[in-house]
Amino acid sequence: MSWDQLTDELDDFEEYLHKFLVSGQPLIQESIIELANAGGKRIRPLLVIITAQFGDYKKEKVWPVAAAIELLHMATLVHDDIIDSSNLRRGIKTVQSRCGKDIAVFTGDYLFSLTFNILSEHTINKHLGLVSKVIKLICEEEIKQYQDRYNVELTYKDYFKRVENKTAILFETSCTLGAELGKIRQSNQDNLARYGRYLGMAFQVTDDLLDFTESIAKLGKPGANDFTQGVYTLPILYVLKETKCAAQLEELLEAPISNKEAIEKIIKDTSALDYTSEVAKNYIQQAKAELNSMPSDYNRERLLFLANQVLERNF
Amino acid sequence: MSWDQLTDELDDFEEYLHKFLVSGQPLIQESIIELANAGGKRIRPLLVIITAQFGDYKKEKVWPVAAAIELLHMATLVHDDIIDSSNLRRGIKTVQSRCGKDIAVFTGDYLFSLTFNILSEHTINKHLGLVSKVIKLICEEEIKQYQDRYNVELTYKDYFKRVENKTAILFETSCTLGAELGKIRQSNQDNLARYGRYLGMAFQVTDDLLDFTESIAKLGKPGANDFTQGVYTLPILYVLKETKCAAQLEELLEAPISNKEAIEKIIKDTSALDYTSEVAKNYIQQAKAELNSMPSDYNRERLLFLANQVLERNF
Repeated sequence: MSWDQLTDELDDFEEYLHKFLVSGQPLIQESIIELANAGGKRIRPLLVIITAQFGDYKKEKVWPVAAAIELLHMATLVHDDIIDSSNLRRGIKTVQSRCGKDIAVFTGDYLFSLTFNILSEHTINKHLGLVSKVIKLICEEEIKQYQDRYNVELTYKDYFKRVENKTAILFETSCTLGAELGKIRQSNQDNLARYGRYLGMAFQVTDDLLDFTESIAKLGKPGANDFTQGVYTLPILYVLKETKCAAQLEELLEAPISNKEAIEKIIKDTSALDYTSEVAKNYIQQAKAELNSMPSDYNRERLLFLANQVLERNF
Repeated sequence: MSWDQLTDELDDFEEYLHKFLVSGQPLIQESIIELANAGGKRIRPLLVIITAQFGDYKKEKVWPVAAAIELLHMATLVHDDIIDSSNLRRGIKTVQSRCGKDIAVFTGDYLFSLTFNILSEHTINKHLGLVSKVIKLICEEEIKQYQDRYNVELTYKDYFKRVENKTAILFETSCTLGAELGKIRQSNQDNLARYGRYLGMAFQVTDDLLDFTESIAKLGKPGANDFTQGVYTLPILYVLKETKCAAQLEELLEAPISNKEAIEKIIKDTSALDYTSEVAKNYIQQAKAELNSMPSDYNRERLLFLANQVLERNF
């Protein structure tokens, strides 16, 4: 299987998604179209669509929900870039760096309103409730992350809770929504929900790994950005907790921008990146294990492929 | 009738509203409780409740919607203060001035998610659709207002459209939701929706009047703030379009902060404030006229009182 095969169906979806990217306000319309065009692999809508296909798949019911999930994800990106003061996202300038934080606030809000508009027209209240709960968790976690900046005492537990709430729950919810829309039996719905959660954990841990290993050109955003803003991810925590370089790193982190290269060197010279990579692989194993109970059909094959891609991804 | 009589019922509502102001994130919880405690007359929930009482009033159906509308309003205030860079709201420091724009973004998002959470549990999809459309309009208008800053060519039409989208539509929707929940007949639902819209227009025009006439102590936010940020409201537009002081004002507006007193003097010396006040009164007349078709009962009396209060308000 290849990405092209996997996302074959998504060509039409892209066009479908764009139908929602309209606004009477030219600046909003321009911002959201540019954000959509800048790419992204549409993993979350893909999860909604594939999981629904295990059951009674009705495109007209599933696609609106898949689109709403992607719009919600875009909304969180726009607001996330405000809090991170990021200048690049998917290789293009962020809304906040192009138009200012003020415009970015309302562009994100607009995307939230589109999300709920679509959901209110196309699905049941229970699903709206699920989605609004995801937003609650993301907001709470973003603020916790902000407060936890520069905290060298951050625990692994704090970190994994962050990964779960910021990223994994939306993956899980995408699978839950698809599985519910496909009306597949409850035990399999539970398998898919957990698959989504583990996949999301692996996705975010890999993201935190790539933050160190990839260059700006490949990721479309600046590399090794997080620790310069005081956001400590797994490689940093590993060095602080498990290695003899802990004290040295702690000192360097007091001036993370001027010490950027020295910090990166420590991360690379210790086994921090191997460890992080192992953690991501473990989550992928857990994700795949959940698929053992699913019918061994083309959908299962696609989800297995997707799981492998998360580790190798450059998206 | 007095405010106390009108809002008698709202004592319990206040307690009810506070039940929703919870978060696992202490900083969010603190921010939203402080915002709620800082006051506000709860006009929008009051509109939901009173309009529902014209019909088949079920408190357990109406109050959640009334609370959701107030939370939505609070969300827009938090995000609005970011775009305005306001430091005070209802006499207390705004979330963005206390905690920074970053925290304010997610506090507002959290309030949006609470809004949709409540609505998804307690009302039908149609109502969720109405509410998400209101947010869309508010976002579009906020960005338009931002783009229109320092534009001395702004038309009355632009201004009234802004007032409609930023404020009046949420008043209208509050009435629509109440009237629908009360299952009152369609023609009366239409009357109440228009009553809400006109009331909202009067409310915002009065707000723009008070921005000039009231002191910081009384309003709980700095007076005459709008034009210093390039946001031109009706009194400014009136002078620019109708008076001999137009050229002089235009020149002064090029440095609005240092010319603040001179600008205020022009506004006060011309008939700009009288004109603005007349416009607000006209909207109130229109709002009241819509009530002619409603049964002349206690509810109608309350809505008439509310309309009069909007003109005299110091809230």
